[in-house]
Amino acid sequence: MTKPFVAVLMGSDSDLPTMQGTLDILKTFGIQFEAKVTSAHRTPAATHAYVTDAEARGCKVFICAAGLAAHLAGAVAGITTRPVIGVPVDCGPLQGHDALLSTVMMPGGVPVATVAIGSAGAKNAGYLAAQMLAVGDDALAIAVKEERAKSAEAVQAKDAKLQEKLANA
Amino acid sequence: MTKPFVAVLMGSDSDLPTMQGTLDILKTFGIQFEAKVTSAHRTPAATHAYVTDAEARGCKVFICAAGLAAHLAGAVAGITTRPVIGVPVDCGPLQGHDALLSTVMMPGGVPVATVAIGSAGAKNAGYLAAQMLAVGDDALAIAVKEERAKSAEAVQAKDAKLQEKLANA
Amino acid sequence: MTKPFVAVLMGSDSDLPTMQGTLDILKTFGIQFEAKVTSAHRTPAATHAYVTDAEARGCKVFICAAGLAAHLAGAVAGITTRPVIGVPVDCGPLQGHDALLSTVMMPGGVPVATVAIGSAGAKNAGYLAAQMLAVGDDALAIAVKEERAKSAEAVQAKDAKLQEKLANA
Amino acid sequence: MTKPFVAVLMGSDSDLPTMQGTLDILKTFGIQFEAKVTSAHRTPAATHAYVTDAEARGCKVFICAAGLAAHLAGAVAGITTRPVIGVPVDCGPLQGHDALLSTVMMPGGVPVATVAIGSAGAKNAGYLAAQMLAVGDDALAIAVKEERAKSAEAVQAKDAKLQEKLANA
Amino acid sequence: MTKPFVAVLMGSDSDLPTMQGTLDILKTFGIQFEAKVTSAHRTPAATHAYVTDAEARGCKVFICAAGLAAHLAGAVAGITTRPVIGVPVDCGPLQGHDALLSTVMMPGGVPVATVAIGSAGAKNAGYLAAQMLAVGDDALAIAVKEERAKSAEAVQAKDAKLQEKLANA
Amino acid sequence: MTKPFVAVLMGSDSDLPTMQGTLDILKTFGIQFEAKVTSAHRTPAATHAYVTDAEARGCKVFICAAGLAAHLAGAVAGITTRPVIGVPVDCGPLQGHDALLSTVMMPGGVPVATVAIGSAGAKNAGYLAAQMLAVGDDALAIAVKEERAKSAEAVQAKDAKLQEKLANA
Amino acid sequence: MTKPFVAVLMGSDSDLPTMQGTLDILKTFGIQFEAKVTSAHRTPAATHAYVTDAEARGCKVFICAAGLAAHLAGAVAGITTRPVIGVPVDCGPLQGHDALLSTVMMPGGVPVATVAIGSAGAKNAGYLAAQMLAVGDDALAIAVKEERAKSAEAVQAKDAKLQEKLANA
Amino acid sequence: MTKPFVAVLMGSDSDLPTMQGTLDILKTFGIQFEAKVTSAHRTPAATHAYVTDAEARGCKVFICAAGLAAHLAGAVAGITTRPVIGVPVDCGPLQGHDALLSTVMMPGGVPVATVAIGSAGAKNAGYLAAQMLAVGDDALAIAVKEERAKSAEAVQAKDAKLQEKLANA
Repeated sequence: MTKPFVAVLMGSDSDLPTMQGTLDILKTFGIQFEAKVTSAHRTPAATHAYVTDAEARGCKVFICAAGLAAHLAGAVAGITTRPVIGVPVDCGPLQGHDALLSTVMMPGGVPVATVAIGSAGAKNAGYLAAQMLAVGDDALAIAVKEERAKSAEAVQAKDAKLQEKLANA
Repeated sequence: MTKPFVAVLMGSDSDLPTMQGTLDILKTFGIQFEAKVTSAHRTPAATHAYVTDAEARGCKVFICAAGLAAHLAGAVAGITTRPVIGVPVDCGPLQGHDALLSTVMMPGGVPVATVAIGSAGAKNAGYLAAQMLAVGDDALAIAVKEERAKSAEAVQAKDAKLQEKLANA
Repeated sequence: MTKPFVAVLMGSDSDLPTMQGTLDILKTFGIQFEAKVTSAHRTPAATHAYVTDAEARGCKVFICAAGLAAHLAGAVAGITTRPVIGVPVDCGPLQGHDALLSTVMMPGGVPVATVAIGSAGAKNAGYLAAQMLAVGDDALAIAVKEERAKSAEAVQAKDAKLQEKLANA
Repeated sequence: MTKPFVAVLMGSDSDLPTMQGTLDILKTFGIQFEAKVTSAHRTPAATHAYVTDAEARGCKVFICAAGLAAHLAGAVAGITTRPVIGVPVDCGPLQGHDALLSTVMMPGGVPVATVAIGSAGAKNAGYLAAQMLAVGDDALAIAVKEERAKSAEAVQAKDAKLQEKLANA
Repeated sequence: MTKPFVAVLMGSDSDLPTMQGTLDILKTFGIQFEAKVTSAHRTPAATHAYVTDAEARGCKVFICAAGLAAHLAGAVAGITTRPVIGVPVDCGPLQGHDALLSTVMMPGGVPVATVAIGSAGAKNAGYLAAQMLAVGDDALAIAVKEERAKSAEAVQAKDAKLQEKLANA
Repeated sequence: MTKPFVAVLMGSDSDLPTMQGTLDILKTFGIQFEAKVTSAHRTPAATHAYVTDAEARGCKVFICAAGLAAHLAGAVAGITTRPVIGVPVDCGPLQGHDALLSTVMMPGGVPVATVAIGSAGAKNAGYLAAQMLAVGDDALAIAVKEERAKSAEAVQAKDAKLQEKLANA
Repeated sequence: MTKPFVAVLMGSDSDLPTMQGTLDILKTFGIQFEAKVTSAHRTPAATHAYVTDAEARGCKVFICAAGLAAHLAGAVAGITTRPVIGVPVDCGPLQGHDALLSTVMMPGGVPVATVAIGSAGAKNAGYLAAQMLAVGDDALAIAVKEERAKSAEAVQAKDAKLQEKLANA
Repeated sequence: MTKPFVAVLMGSDSDLPTMQGTLDILKTFGIQFEAKVTSAHRTPAATHAYVTDAEARGCKVFICAAGLAAHLAGAVAGITTRPVIGVPVDCGPLQGHDALLSTVMMPGGVPVATVAIGSAGAKNAGYLAAQMLAVGDDALAIAVKEERAKSAEAVQAKDAKLQEKLANA
């Protein structure tokens, strides 16, 4: 029987600092994951083999990060029919604007669920994968709701600090 | 017991021609859905009430379409923890570039799974919702795979026509 | 009886250094204000509650600062009918261009009075709030005029320095 | 004694179709207004004379519409200290993107309250002027609230139509 | 023994009107070519099989046209080491700006020789393929030089017409 | 009798480091100039007075530098009919893209001769002013030609260095 | 002795409708001109020969119009040291944004006096050439001033029409 | 008899650090090359002379790097009919976006094979030149294939490191 997990693919090891945010969120939710450096252009066969095998072994969601003409998420979305989340990486002279358009403007029939450029998007890729898995996992759904509540508390704590600061000013 | 469905929200009835593409794909897969015109800005309370109620009644995925400063997907993503798919609508003088950035650049913790601007994105919102539901529904997963195979056949049929045309030229 | 004041809301405490410029201008004019960290996405209910309450307590103008897919000003504009000033914050890989479009491209019926991205806009949010309040407050109108005159004098002082420098070159 | 009114300035008579939306909203609220074709570049002296005189005669809010390198709102903001609302007009090869940046990116001390490019912005200029005047006019404040409620009802009517259409499909 | 030819791939049959310009130029130079509709996302396996086979059968240059998140040229460049020319197609709400960035911003090691968006680029893809083949084919090199001379004559003929028109004005 | 000179206006003293490049070129050509800090928005009356007076005193060309919603060049072009050169200053979060559009997209009848954003543009403003004055000044025309020849020699000297470096590598 | 004139160069005869605006303004001022279709890329030698000869025959200002990667103005500016005015033509999928950047972002030492994209810029190229020639031609300087006054009257006539329309509404 | 080589031209010696990446790749493949600083605008005659002579001496491919209004590649493409590769250099306030459009948007008949902005593009210019030469050079074609295989191994080595890191975490 297959064991459900999330696959986190990145086009280059230079994407790892950004994608650590994804891995951290997945760990927070106790979601099993595999991370892999693989390239749509330099190792297309290895990418194809990994994605096919991962889907067979129980990968339920793919998260793909790439910069510049970011094709990795689209390439993976053409191999698997599991949901693919794309993270446009903020690198190069156009600061990820190229990666955003290369990731999000997919033609009909092959969607990539695109999140924000850079670190905010990397974190959200983890949250979105958790939300997808939670569609069929009530315990995870509760965990996601609790995490949201914590994030609201964090905002309120920051506001409390601001009030204190203003009161003492 | 709740019955699973997808909610398709649009900020204006002028978004319906674009979003018909979403509804058609959902019908293709036999996915139950509700469609609703509701505005993040003009009817925020009605939006909040609907989303909360829909989640309680079994809505598993929200699809939100809006143009210009497109806040609907983000607003819904702040109310529910179910996955929210955002479709930037191609309207106004900036042709959806504003809607794309307003939809995709969400801060950490509140993701919107963004698809392409306009009709390609509307279709893909339907496919992506099907892929998300298929994570926990093996029959739907097979249907999604079959649909992908049909789309490949459609490309090959177009190529066959081109070959015929070139042979006769 | 309600006491008139301006509410300065920011989506994150990281917006505070930018928004200090707003608070300084409001102090210059002796305008009462409240400042608050609150999020359109992470604390939508708290945002709603605060805005409704603030309006009831006499808030006459709201100033909202946010970056990325900056929805805070639009969300507040959907709750209150008091004027809402939006400050797009210069953060993230797109340097506030996303925040500008997310703030200014509001659909008909729910305006956000948008100012420049970043620190220039933050200062101008303060001036604009003063101008709005001065519509019904002649003493404040005079103070605004005097401040403008001072700003003209500052330009002329800088010119005087340049002339001196050129004369000595 | 001065009589309060709003001045609606446009750089060219070709802006009138867009700006009719502003005039209609002002009429809806029963707000007195003057409309004038005047150019920051071709008739700077006439612009200066009109603005100075209008402020003296009781103009409380200026609304300025211009396309391309849209300087009218900024020029007026440099003459008066009353609030100035800028409407970037959607004309020329860059479709108002130039007018948006020329209007909104004002330096510190001279704000322009910028609304969306084109017709959505033109309508919102009228609403925003009403909101500004309503700061000191409780009857107008109530009228603005009622108009917002009507706009919510319009959204709900559109939703009702959609439900009917879906039920009959 | 392999027979040299150029392969012209397009992601959709809707790209054919644009790419007819490429085919016409190749015919002008008497260059053998194959044209094929194939998709990086919908038929990745067929694309891979065709490119590998075409290279083995003597394809010397690949020309790939695609719109939106245009991955076809990059995908083909990852399969073959023959030169790949990318034509960004002018379609969708962003008018080919997305296709340009998706085609040209390739990472180091996998170049795509990118030409202009749309019909100018389609023609130039044909010229560029001819130039590449002419590196090792002196007769073709002479034909390319003659074609350039004709294009200069066409400009001069247009100038002659203008002079006549001005003389008669 | 009036004495010909160039007036170099800047919206802020923070533009001086950029505009030093203009002043240096004018000095190179021995062209008389005045430099002044004056603002289209903060000191419109002083700007108007200066430009009118300068034209009367023999100013033949105006050079205006400003950033953000850069109106200075356009405002000056509306006061004088002497040629006005606009230098978009590279400041603020949009890095001068806003200043470029605000400077160059002038409506028919009031041209601004726009040069590149930032330091390259500042130098070229000086060269362009010299070229304009040289239309009626043959000695200056010869000096401009000689300067161009020197700039060609500088390129050739750099190439010589490169050849030496390559030879020794 | 040489006879002063303006040379109006365009990269293609498709630029003529746009550039007719330039020719009309030059005629209005009675300025001698030559118009020519010549290409920086297809007829570089003819362009070089014409520019060198034109300068020798008394050409005082060059006006160059081109679209896409608009190099004509820059190429001409590298041949002559007379002022070169660049008109970015609004054609192709990027609507002249490419032509604007290709024309205005010239490196130090070789300025192009750039005007607005398209028809507004074409008219202004004519005005700017007149202003440049007027630096050394007092009669022309007076004609330019009179034309400006007429343009102001045209604005005022449009305003008069608007007042009439509003009075009758 | 002519000896085949690649010519690497750059508009300024400040482009050398970027273009070292091109030279390194050419050396890797043992391809003969010449490098030269020459400017489309400051030394057009020298550029013309060099390109004509280089083609006669056996230059098979030209690589041209320039920033800002990057005309060098287009200018060279107008002189020779050998393939011209354009590298947009990442410099100036627009970070190479101007150079990209100035290089890639060439009109029909005069193609420039454009690669990515900056260092990724510089490397790829070398690879692309090698691919072009390999069309008629089987030994080089094998070397290019081997280099691609090495680049795949490098990706796999990075992945191995990541797996090790994750295993030890």
